[in-house]
Amino acid sequence: MTSSISKLSDLLSEKVRKTNKVIEKNLSSKETPIIGDIASHLINSGGKRVRPLLTLVVSKLFDYRGEKDTFLAAAIEYIHSATLLHDDVIDRSEKRRGLKTANLIWTNKYSVLVGDFLFSRAFQLMVKTQSLKIMKTLSEASAIISQGEILQVGIEKKLDASQEDYLKVIQGKTSALFSAACQAGAEITEASDPHIQALRVYGECIGTSFQLIDDLLDYMGNENEMGKDKGNDFFEKKVTLPIIHAYEKSSLLEKKLIKETFQKPSLNQTDLNNFLEILENRKSLLFTKNQASIWTERSINALQIIENSEIKTLMIGLAEEILDRVS
Amino acid sequence: MTSSISKLSDLLSEKVRKTNKVIEKNLSSKETPIIGDIASHLINSGGKRVRPLLTLVVSKLFDYRGEKDTFLAAAIEYIHSATLLHDDVIDRSEKRRGLKTANLIWTNKYSVLVGDFLFSRAFQLMVKTQSLKIMKTLSEASAIISQGEILQVGIEKKLDASQEDYLKVIQGKTSALFSAACQAGAEITEASDPHIQALRVYGECIGTSFQLIDDLLDYMGNENEMGKDKGNDFFEKKVTLPIIHAYEKSSLLEKKLIKETFQKPSLNQTDLNNFLEILENRKSLLFTKNQASIWTERSINALQIIENSEIKTLMIGLAEEILDRVS
Repeated sequence: MTSSISKLSDLLSEKVRKTNKVIEKNLSSKETPIIGDIASHLINSGGKRVRPLLTLVVSKLFDYRGEKDTFLAAAIEYIHSATLLHDDVIDRSEKRRGLKTANLIWTNKYSVLVGDFLFSRAFQLMVKTQSLKIMKTLSEASAIISQGEILQVGIEKKLDASQEDYLKVIQGKTSALFSAACQAGAEITEASDPHIQALRVYGECIGTSFQLIDDLLDYMGNENEMGKDKGNDFFEKKVTLPIIHAYEKSSLLEKKLIKETFQKPSLNQTDLNNFLEILENRKSLLFTKNQASIWTERSINALQIIENSEIKTLMIGLAEEILDRVS
Repeated sequence: MTSSISKLSDLLSEKVRKTNKVIEKNLSSKETPIIGDIASHLINSGGKRVRPLLTLVVSKLFDYRGEKDTFLAAAIEYIHSATLLHDDVIDRSEKRRGLKTANLIWTNKYSVLVGDFLFSRAFQLMVKTQSLKIMKTLSEASAIISQGEILQVGIEKKLDASQEDYLKVIQGKTSALFSAACQAGAEITEASDPHIQALRVYGECIGTSFQLIDDLLDYMGNENEMGKDKGNDFFEKKVTLPIIHAYEKSSLLEKKLIKETFQKPSLNQTDLNNFLEILENRKSLLFTKNQASIWTERSINALQIIENSEIKTLMIGLAEEILDRVS
């Protein structure tokens, strides 16, 4: 069965092609070719480009006929790429999507600066939409993204972080851009305010579900499919919902064990195996999946006020596929 | 004698006060108080705030009566602060304006993320000016700034970098924001296009002069006045015009000496003293000062088409003071 995301990509293949062209074209710079090298390394490394696709899909949902959606979609992908470059510097990551990270190949300096460049270019592209509403939506989203990332640093290694803390983190670092991608995609069209708001909520909820599944897959995925090692978050002592839930539900003895583990300077495979057992016993991965499904349901509900159409049906399918994805 | 910059600050004291209020207010965040801590540490550390002042001055020059200039000036200061936070991460700096750097106190992670936040907030403030022209000017400037910084990494430790390479670097990393601060300050007013262009050039040229003097003072200033150690650039092997000129003009023997010095893993006071002697012999500091004065002259010439006024006279004075500053 063809997935909804593939069908959407096919339906919008011309728009996707144009967006990719905008993405490519605005990286080239005679004076500083390294920008193109670094950005292409990341952008062409096989990311799903689901955020820019959402922008195109939403514009199509409201029957948009112009060309601004492609600038907007490219801007969204640039903002996303900028945050990934900075994330990898912050996390000292060595691998992303199965490839060496830019910071590892070109040093942190370049990753920070090329991230800054992509961010600026994103705003340059937005200016081309000639819409202050969109600049507002996306500059707000960008600020919320950094705030989410800052909150995330705050709960690092904090085993007793609350589920609410975690939700705030992911709603900042992930949901905000999904939300803005959909909202802005509607804002360049003639969509009414209630419709724009519905799309904002749809984006926010699938973004939250997307991140929950990401955090879940980190404990399940295999290296080939995820492009990163299983237990990556664990080895980085990144506190995500599976950990928070497992720790909450653990016995005093298990809590002590987890705490001691997290105090070790570095974690090994045995530590991971022990922890996977606790996750299994406490049904923490199942819990995470259930939470994700609640957000998926919310995203689908948000579309209720939108008239039925092929695109709408595929958007519902896309929300379900984000929930059921295995990579 | 009261300096032009003080007179301008006095004349615009109400605007400066309002700008500072905007700067302060938009840093506060209940969820992430650390943003305010870090940004305030930097912003209140005694920077001259010459860039936002320029925006206010230019708006005043064209008799602007609204409130948008203060949002714009605050946005300019945010962009500047964002680049400083990222610079200090990149250069692994430990001291700025006489204080410990944010990266040293709060770690690189926070410096990168708070820089990103300030950058986003800058765009949020710009949206308040409701001017796409300004968003264009400033998003372009931001992209040029990162390109300048990227070029700078490229000529690191490159003793045979050309004066042109160096000029491209500083016109990116410094002149672009001075230029945009003046241009955007004119763009929110009723100024004509030729006047806006004149102000763009004025800003660009004083920015270039400003950076040349900065690079010169690094070899002259004392710790108290600059807030950083003498020879800081030298110890970081940062190739600036004094080095480029000295190396160009050196004898083969001296060239060999400089090259060997730069190959040492770290430089000490004796290395600096030896190098200062070469700078003296080759009159490289005098050369740098002369170059700066050419840019100052250009900045003043750019104002020729502007009607005479008290503000214009003070802007000429400000350009001269940037050239003659000792800190």
